[in-house]
Amino acid sequence: MGTPLNLDTPAVFIGRQGNGVISFGSGQPDLPPPKEAIEGIDIRKDLRYGLIQGQLPLRENLSKEYPDSTPDNFVITNGASEALDLTFRALAPGKVLVPRPYYYSYPPLVELAGMEPVYTDLVEGRIDLDDFKKKIKDCKAVLINSPSNPTGRIECVETLKEIERITAELGVYVVSDEVYKDLIYERGNYHINGDQVITVNSFSKTYAMCGVRVGYLWSSDKKFVDRVIEIKTHTSMNTNLVGQDMALKAMDTPRAYIDEQQLIWRGRRDFIYEKFTELGFDLWKPEGAFYILPKCKNARQFVTTLYHDYQVIAYLGEWFGAPDRIRLSYALDKEMIEEGLGRIADAMKKVPCL
Amino acid sequence: MGTPLNLDTPAVFIGRQGNGVISFGSGQPDLPPPKEAIEGIDIRKDLRYGLIQGQLPLRENLSKEYPDSTPDNFVITNGASEALDLTFRALAPGKVLVPRPYYYSYPPLVELAGMEPVYTDLVEGRIDLDDFKKKIKDCKAVLINSPSNPTGRIECVETLKEIERITAELGVYVVSDEVYKDLIYERGNYHINGDQVITVNSFSKTYAMCGVRVGYLWSSDKKFVDRVIEIKTHTSMNTNLVGQDMALKAMDTPRAYIDEQQLIWRGRRDFIYEKFTELGFDLWKPEGAFYILPKCKNARQFVTTLYHDYQVIAYLGEWFGAPDRIRLSYALDKEMIEEGLGRIADAMKKVPCL
Repeated sequence: MGTPLNLDTPAVFIGRQGNGVISFGSGQPDLPPPKEAIEGIDIRKDLRYGLIQGQLPLRENLSKEYPDSTPDNFVITNGASEALDLTFRALAPGKVLVPRPYYYSYPPLVELAGMEPVYTDLVEGRIDLDDFKKKIKDCKAVLINSPSNPTGRIECVETLKEIERITAELGVYVVSDEVYKDLIYERGNYHINGDQVITVNSFSKTYAMCGVRVGYLWSSDKKFVDRVIEIKTHTSMNTNLVGQDMALKAMDTPRAYIDEQQLIWRGRRDFIYEKFTELGFDLWKPEGAFYILPKCKNARQFVTTLYHDYQVIAYLGEWFGAPDRIRLSYALDKEMIEEGLGRIADAMKKVPCL
Repeated sequence: MGTPLNLDTPAVFIGRQGNGVISFGSGQPDLPPPKEAIEGIDIRKDLRYGLIQGQLPLRENLSKEYPDSTPDNFVITNGASEALDLTFRALAPGKVLVPRPYYYSYPPLVELAGMEPVYTDLVEGRIDLDDFKKKIKDCKAVLINSPSNPTGRIECVETLKEIERITAELGVYVVSDEVYKDLIYERGNYHINGDQVITVNSFSKTYAMCGVRVGYLWSSDKKFVDRVIEIKTHTSMNTNLVGQDMALKAMDTPRAYIDEQQLIWRGRRDFIYEKFTELGFDLWKPEGAFYILPKCKNARQFVTTLYHDYQVIAYLGEWFGAPDRIRLSYALDKEMIEEGLGRIADAMKKVPCL
């Protein structure tokens, strides 16, 4: 046994990878980025300030992907994280409805902006429209994340359309975090639309360039976009220009690359779902992103044992608002997943987790 | 006459440069970056997440510049802007003492973080220690910016040491924005020191790489640094990795490059100060940075006339808390400054500004 782990936040596992450790923690693609992203690196020599809103060629390119859009509808940000942060700061104050389990940064982001999170518990990993309708009335915004980190679930298109309708009627903002939009195994992405919809997206997952930190938000609400630009003028100014060049060039990546990546992810999804089911875990079959969130008894003890005795990193579900579960990312190659699964099977003999 | 200008914020002048416009507005070096910064661009191919705190080699290099420091004392940020934003968010709530005139982002940054700005008016562009002592007692932090944007003034080392003493005694945080530390014409930089000092700095001005957005904060207060990292984990994650590589390589730039740049800035400083004095303006001689803040009657009308009739951009002092002044940057080559000065002289005949 090593020193006791402080399991208050996922930060406990930062820097603990390598040296035989198998990490199911990391929320980023392990696959290499497309050559286009790298090629984007050396084309810029002018290092002066760029536009706070983001460079025009990148916003022009994005506007082709969003129906009825212009470059004015976009703000380029330091990843989806900053897009969310700016969004809540621009919307504050007020309540934000957050489906639970949630991505662990959501509650602190809402609170740091001076807003208040209100939770609606997912049923079988999906939004419960009855509870949603009850709670949405008091809220200024709702945060949708489909496909979801940590559940791996997607919402039905019908549900998303119903959310569009309800929120439009009430004048509630929809903040739709679609960073996994290119990693849906069941259907194409459904882009939630409306006058008070804010879409948050990123180049990180689609093009495996998380560390470059380029994301964006989309909104057709000019006042909202202006407010975001005003805040960003003070808090970070333009998003780094080299990263924007890389993102621009990455968009040239042929669709075949994304489809090929999807095939790899799908193979891993099938594999880990099957194996976890065989081990006896109760879990949802992932429909998007690259996470599973199996039920797990004695989760703290199991996660501690996994790390100390088997050098396997799994995240506590409680960090994501799911205290009776653990979260695993399958952004690992199949051999690593297989080796990790063997160790998990051994750990299950020590800690009763089913 | 064109359409009326909305002079509420400096944003009015964004995108209005070029086509014969001479802008004294921009707060960034016009000189090219050192070749080292550009050379840093292509060395990284791993685009996965980096450390939230910043890459170790860059923090190691920085720690050599700060006495008794280790890499743990630094957090690499998206420019000095994000360093300030994270600092106030980590210190909130409470009051922040802000010397006035101030950099225009200071009040919104303090307020966005949920803190309250309290002002101490500079006397002849310098801190009035009597007023400072009175107001500091109620504050959680004070923001020092020497050399200052917009005043171009530096504080005496004795004043800075007195501030160190007073704040240490009261347990007040000092947030020292030293982004112009390599642009002091009178003496070397004095790095304010102490257990509750937070230094904010940037590679932008020294290495002419504003658009790359790499800055950092330094603090010997471990709890503060940890809190900043925790917030940044949610709000933006790691600072873009390519930019950090560029900053690391830029630090190899020979000191001679910085000294040479200083000579150019000093020449411009002398020139613009002499010419503005000849024109009859009442202004302080800049001791650092690259701004002048002359007194100006009818400032709104003068700035409007300058822009509409003479295609010259000058900033309103009121954006910086100095309503009876205008602010001009001399980050322009001498020929441009000279041409601009001629136009300003003409405009003075139309609008009584002295």
